[in-house]
Amino acid sequence: MKKFMGEDFLLTNETAVHIYQNYAKDMPIIDYHCHLSPQEIYENKTFKNITEAWLYGDHYKWRVMRANGISEDYITGQADDYDKFVAWAKTVPMTIGNPLYNWTHLELQRFFDVYDILNEETASTIWEKVNNLLNGRGFGARDLILKSNVKVICTTDDPVDSLKYHKLLMEDHDFNVSVLPSFRPDKALEINRNGYLEWVSKLEQAAGQKIVDYDDFLNALESRIHFFHSIGGRVSDHALDVMVYKEATKEEIAEIFSKRMQGVEVSQEDEKKYKTYTLNFFGGIYAKLGWTMQFHINALRNNNSKMYNRLGPDTGYDSMNDDGIAKPLVKILDALDKEDALPKTILYSLNPNDNHVIASIINSFQDGKKPGKIQFGTAWWFNDNKDGMLEQMKALANVGLFSRFLGMLTDSRSFLSYTRHEYFRRLVCQLVGEWVENGEVPNDMDLLGNVVQGISYYNAKNYFEFDIKE
Amino acid sequence: MKKFMGEDFLLTNETAVHIYQNYAKDMPIIDYHCHLSPQEIYENKTFKNITEAWLYGDHYKWRVMRANGISEDYITGQADDYDKFVAWAKTVPMTIGNPLYNWTHLELQRFFDVYDILNEETASTIWEKVNNLLNGRGFGARDLILKSNVKVICTTDDPVDSLKYHKLLMEDHDFNVSVLPSFRPDKALEINRNGYLEWVSKLEQAAGQKIVDYDDFLNALESRIHFFHSIGGRVSDHALDVMVYKEATKEEIAEIFSKRMQGVEVSQEDEKKYKTYTLNFFGGIYAKLGWTMQFHINALRNNNSKMYNRLGPDTGYDSMNDDGIAKPLVKILDALDKEDALPKTILYSLNPNDNHVIASIINSFQDGKKPGKIQFGTAWWFNDNKDGMLEQMKALANVGLFSRFLGMLTDSRSFLSYTRHEYFRRLVCQLVGEWVENGEVPNDMDLLGNVVQGISYYNAKNYFEFDIKE
Amino acid sequence: MKKFMGEDFLLTNETAVHIYQNYAKDMPIIDYHCHLSPQEIYENKTFKNITEAWLYGDHYKWRVMRANGISEDYITGQADDYDKFVAWAKTVPMTIGNPLYNWTHLELQRFFDVYDILNEETASTIWEKVNNLLNGRGFGARDLILKSNVKVICTTDDPVDSLKYHKLLMEDHDFNVSVLPSFRPDKALEINRNGYLEWVSKLEQAAGQKIVDYDDFLNALESRIHFFHSIGGRVSDHALDVMVYKEATKEEIAEIFSKRMQGVEVSQEDEKKYKTYTLNFFGGIYAKLGWTMQFHINALRNNNSKMYNRLGPDTGYDSMNDDGIAKPLVKILDALDKEDALPKTILYSLNPNDNHVIASIINSFQDGKKPGKIQFGTAWWFNDNKDGMLEQMKALANVGLFSRFLGMLTDSRSFLSYTRHEYFRRLVCQLVGEWVENGEVPNDMDLLGNVVQGISYYNAKNYFEFDIKE
Repeated sequence: MKKFMGEDFLLTNETAVHIYQNYAKDMPIIDYHCHLSPQEIYENKTFKNITEAWLYGDHYKWRVMRANGISEDYITGQADDYDKFVAWAKTVPMTIGNPLYNWTHLELQRFFDVYDILNEETASTIWEKVNNLLNGRGFGARDLILKSNVKVICTTDDPVDSLKYHKLLMEDHDFNVSVLPSFRPDKALEINRNGYLEWVSKLEQAAGQKIVDYDDFLNALESRIHFFHSIGGRVSDHALDVMVYKEATKEEIAEIFSKRMQGVEVSQEDEKKYKTYTLNFFGGIYAKLGWTMQFHINALRNNNSKMYNRLGPDTGYDSMNDDGIAKPLVKILDALDKEDALPKTILYSLNPNDNHVIASIINSFQDGKKPGKIQFGTAWWFNDNKDGMLEQMKALANVGLFSRFLGMLTDSRSFLSYTRHEYFRRLVCQLVGEWVENGEVPNDMDLLGNVVQGISYYNAKNYFEFDIKE
Repeated sequence: MKKFMGEDFLLTNETAVHIYQNYAKDMPIIDYHCHLSPQEIYENKTFKNITEAWLYGDHYKWRVMRANGISEDYITGQADDYDKFVAWAKTVPMTIGNPLYNWTHLELQRFFDVYDILNEETASTIWEKVNNLLNGRGFGARDLILKSNVKVICTTDDPVDSLKYHKLLMEDHDFNVSVLPSFRPDKALEINRNGYLEWVSKLEQAAGQKIVDYDDFLNALESRIHFFHSIGGRVSDHALDVMVYKEATKEEIAEIFSKRMQGVEVSQEDEKKYKTYTLNFFGGIYAKLGWTMQFHINALRNNNSKMYNRLGPDTGYDSMNDDGIAKPLVKILDALDKEDALPKTILYSLNPNDNHVIASIINSFQDGKKPGKIQFGTAWWFNDNKDGMLEQMKALANVGLFSRFLGMLTDSRSFLSYTRHEYFRRLVCQLVGEWVENGEVPNDMDLLGNVVQGISYYNAKNYFEFDIKE
Repeated sequence: MKKFMGEDFLLTNETAVHIYQNYAKDMPIIDYHCHLSPQEIYENKTFKNITEAWLYGDHYKWRVMRANGISEDYITGQADDYDKFVAWAKTVPMTIGNPLYNWTHLELQRFFDVYDILNEETASTIWEKVNNLLNGRGFGARDLILKSNVKVICTTDDPVDSLKYHKLLMEDHDFNVSVLPSFRPDKALEINRNGYLEWVSKLEQAAGQKIVDYDDFLNALESRIHFFHSIGGRVSDHALDVMVYKEATKEEIAEIFSKRMQGVEVSQEDEKKYKTYTLNFFGGIYAKLGWTMQFHINALRNNNSKMYNRLGPDTGYDSMNDDGIAKPLVKILDALDKEDALPKTILYSLNPNDNHVIASIINSFQDGKKPGKIQFGTAWWFNDNKDGMLEQMKALANVGLFSRFLGMLTDSRSFLSYTRHEYFRRLVCQLVGEWVENGEVPNDMDLLGNVVQGISYYNAKNYFEFDIKE
C-alpha cells in the first residue's frame, strides 16, 4: 500500500516515477486559461485566512458542501469564516474519490507544509497553522505564483475591459511572470441575452467610436482585439454552450443586428445566423494575428432558477449538456478553413462523451504546417480528475497525437490551484509509464522525456508564442 | 490466480478484502426498488424446481439464450422444465464475461451450497441437488429473504392496486421484514397508450370517486398516494423512457384531458404538456409527504413487434435509448425546485453515456438540508455488471459525493437475486481499496468503514426514513 | 518492465499468455471485411519500396503526419519516396499511444524481421533492409496473404463491378485463399449524391436491362446480388453515415425515383423514405440468400472542403458523427424482422458512445436459431486500438454473449495489415485472462480455448458459411 499522497502519489510503476521525478516535476507552468484577477496579482493580494483563500469563490467546493447537507449560511452566507472552514472540514472526508479530496491535501502540503488530513477533528489546528502562514510574509498572490514556477498566466477578460492591471504588470519588471489577457467576447455573441444593448454601449466607449450598424460593431470588436494584442493577448475564449451553425449573408446579419439595436428580440434562427457569422468574423481576425481560439462546449448553465436569482451565475449550479456537436463544429471549422482563415484552435467539451468525437474531428483540420494546430483541450471542469484526465488523454492518443498535446491549465479563480499541474503531470507520467511497462512503448528516455516535457511545458511554449518575460 | 468466485472474488487488493470482510459483508439490505410479488412473499411461495425459480420470469436469461441460438420452446415455450434447465446450462458457459455467469454461480453457492460450475455436463447433478433443497424446508420466498438479511423491500405497484398483501404483511408480526409499496403511475402519464381510459375507470373505483375532469383525476391520484402512504409507501417510480418538458397552464391540460376522455387522440405536443404538468403535480405531493421520487430514463422498449405480439412486454426485447436528457431533466427539476416542491429524487438512466450528465445535474439541486437529497441511482439493468457499476460509481465520485450514495437495489423479479448486493458491495470495497492502495485516500478504517457501511445500508436507512419493523 | 513489443506484448498475466500461445496465435484468418484490390491479389502485386506499401494509400498515417506538421508534399504530394518515408519516420516517435506506433513495428517485425525502432535515425537502415526484401521473392500480395495464414478475404465492391478478378481468383487453383466480393450498394441509396443518374446507367449496363421505373431498378439490383452470389459473395456492406427510418408505400418510392430520374432533386423527407424502402428491399433479398448484412454507422465524411476538392474522399478528413441511432436502427431491424426478412446482420458504429446501445439492441432481434445472428461488429476505424477494442468487447460481454463474437477484420487497403489480427487476438486473450486471474471465470482451458478459438476463427467460419477453398 502506498503512503497517502506521498512521493509516488498516482504513480503505480517505476517508469512513471522515474519520468515524473526527472522530467516532469520541475518544468515551469504556462497557465494559458484561468480566471485569476489581474488586479489581485498586481496588488499582491493577501488572505486574512484560509476560508477567504479556499471558500470565498470556489463553486466546486460549494456544490459538494450543499450535497453534503451543509446549509447555505456556511457556504455563501453570513456564518463566520471559522465556522465556514469547519463546515468544509466536515465535508472533506465525504469527498473521498473526488478530486477535491486530493486537491485540498495537495494545497495543504505544497503551500503550507501541512501533512495532516483535514477533517472536523484536525480543523482547528490546521486553521491556526495555515492562517499564521497566510498572515506572514511570502503568501501573497505573487508569492504563490512564483512558488509554483509559473511563467505565463492568461486571464479571461471582457473585450471592453481596460486591461489596466495587465498594463501595469507588463511594466512591472520586478515580477517576472507574463500576465496576459484573453479575449472572451461571449457578450458580443449572446444577442438575446439581457444586457446586450448596454454591452454594445460599453463597447462604443471602449473602442472610442459610434456603433450604428453591424459594420461599426465589427470594427469596434476588431479594434479591441488589436488592443488586446498590444497588451500581449494571443488567445481568445468562447463559451459555446450550444454549438450552432447556420449560414447567412452579411446583409442578413446587418439587418438582424439593426433590429436588435432597436430593441426587437431576435428569432432563434436569426440568433444562429448572427452567432455563426460573428464567430466566423472573429476566427478570421484571430488567424491573421496568429492567435489561438478556444471553444468551451456543452455546458448547461444556471440550472437552478431559485439560486440563480439569489446568487447569480458561477455559483455551483451548472452541469454538462448533451447536445450533439459533431456537425456544427465541423461546419464552423470548415467554413473558416476554406477561406484560409482558421486560426490555431483548442476544443474543450464539458461532456466526456464528446472526447472521441473531438479527438477525431481535430485531425480533419490540421494544416501540415503548425504541429498540432487544432487541439483537443485538456479535461475540463467536471472532468478535471484522475479518470477524466486519463480518458481525455487516451482518446487523444488513440485517435491522434498525444505527443503534441498542450497539456494542463488551471481554469481556476484561486492562486492555490497551481498544484493541479502536479496532479496532471503525475497522470501524464503514469499513463506513459504504463505503456512502457506493458511493452507498448520502448523504454527510451530521450523519447519519453521529450514527450513528457513537451506536454508539461514546451508544447504550449512553442504553440502560443507568447511574449514571455525573461 | 484467484480461485473461481472464492472468498476474494472481485477483490484484488488487501484493503478491499479487509473492508469487505469487516464492514460490508454483514450489513443488512434495504431493497428500495424491486419487482417482487407481495402475494408470493405473503404466501411464502415455494418453487417446484430450479427452472421455475430461475427461468419462468427472467428475461435477462431469455435474451442470452436466444442469442445463443436456443429455440423459444426452451425459453418461454412448451418444453419441459428439465429440458429448459439443460438449455440454460448449455448457455451458461457461453456467458463468460456477462454478469449472468457470476450471478448464476453466486446463487448456487449462497442459497444451495453448490460450488460446481454449471454446464451441460453438470446440469443433471445440479438439477437434482437444488430441486431437493427447493422441495424441502427453508426455501420459500420468506426464507430466501430472511437468509439474505433483508430489512425492507419496496415492490412496484400500480396506483389502483388494493395493496392487500402489503397490508397483510404489515400486520404479520411473525415476518420481521417491511414489505412496502412503491407508487408507479406510468399508466396515469401515458395518455396515448392503449388502455388509458380503462385505467382511469379503475382509478375511479380504487379512489371511490367519479372522474369527470382533470381536477377529479388529480384528486383521485392524490388520494391513492395518501393510501399508499398509509401502508408505508414512501417511494414512487416513473419509467420516463423519453424525457419531455413542455410548460402549459392547468387550463390547457384540463382541456387535453377532457378531449382524451372523449376518446380523441392527443397530439405529441399536447402529450408532452400533459406529462410535464402531471409529473410536476406528482412531484409536489411527494415533496409534501417526504417521499422519494425515482426516474428511470432512456429505455427503448418492445423493440421487436413480432415477439411483442406473441409474448407481451418485459420479455427480453428492450434496449437502451440514446436521446439527449440534460435539458428536459434540468427543466423538470427546476420547475419543482423553484416552487419548493422538489422531493428527494433518484435518477437512473439505462444509457451509461448519461452517467456524467446525471452526476453533474444532481448537484444543481441539492438543498443544503438533506445530505445527498438528489441522487444518481446505481447502475441499472444492462449496466448491472462489474464495469457498469464501477463506471457509475466513478462518475458519481468524480463529480460529486460517492460517500452519500444510496447503493444497491435488486430491481429483480426473483427472490434469489439478493446475492447481487454481495456482488455490488465487493465492487464498492474494491474501488475504495484501490484508492487506498494507490495513495489517493488514507488508510483510515474509521473513515472507510463509515463510508462503506453507509453505501451498504445506513445511507438508505437515513435517506428514505421507512418505517422499519423491529 | 516488459520488452518493447516482445513475445508477451499486451499480455499482462500468465493465463493470457498461455491462452494466446496455445489457442489464438495459430488460428487462420477470415478477413470478412476489407478494401484490398482483387486485381492486385490476382496479379500478385509487388512493391517497389516501403513507401508504396505504407504511404501511397493509408489515410490513417496521412492524418497524423499532418497533425505532426508535415507538409502535404511529403504525404500525398510530389516529394520522392525516400523523403516521404523519412517524413513518416520522423512522425512515428510522436505517435506513441496511437495504434499506428504498434502496427508499424508489428509489420516491421512480422513481415521483415526488423526489430529496430523506427525514427529519423534508423530510417535509412530500415529503408534499405525492407526495400531489399520487397524487391526480392516472397513479398508479393499473395505471399503476404499466405504468410498471414488467411483463408478468406471479402473485398468491398460496387454492385456494377464485373468481379473479373474474383472470377479469375476463384478459378486459380494455385492460390488457396477464397477472395470473395462484398456487395456495397451505397451509390444505390444515395439518391441525391452527384453521379446517381450516371450510376443508374452503369447499373443498366451491368445488369443488361433497361431501367425505366423503380421496379426495373430493384430488379437490376436483385440480379446483381444474384451475380455476386454466384461468385461466392455472401456479405453486403452499407455505409449508413446517418441512420434514417421513414415508412412509405412502394408507390410513393416509385414516384420519388421517377422524379429523380427526370433530374429533379429529392427532398430530405423523400430521401429518407427512399432509403428506408430500398434498404428494406436489400435486407429481404439478403435474408433469402442467407447473406450477412453489415451497417457501418455514424461516420462524418469529407469534413474539409478545401482538401476534399484537392484530394477527394478517403484521404484522412473524416471523423465520428454523434447522431442518436437507437430509434431508427431498431425500426429498420424490426421492419425486416416482422416480415421474417431480417438477414444475419453486423452493426458497427464509428462512435464508441454507441457501443452499449448496439450491444443492447442486437439481442432484441436474435431468433433462437442462428447463434449470434445479430452481431455487434468489432471496434471500427478510429476505435481500432487497444482501448477501443477492449471497450467494444466489454460492452458486448456485459450486455450479451462475448463467446459468440465474430472477431476481427482488417478493414484495410494494405496487405501488411494482417498483423492487426495478432494485435486483436492478444487483447481477446488479455481480457479473458484477466477474468480468470480475477476469479470471475474458471481456469478451464476447454472452455476458454473454445471461446478464444471461436472468436479468432470458428465463429466467423460457422456464421458466414463461405465457400472456403480447401
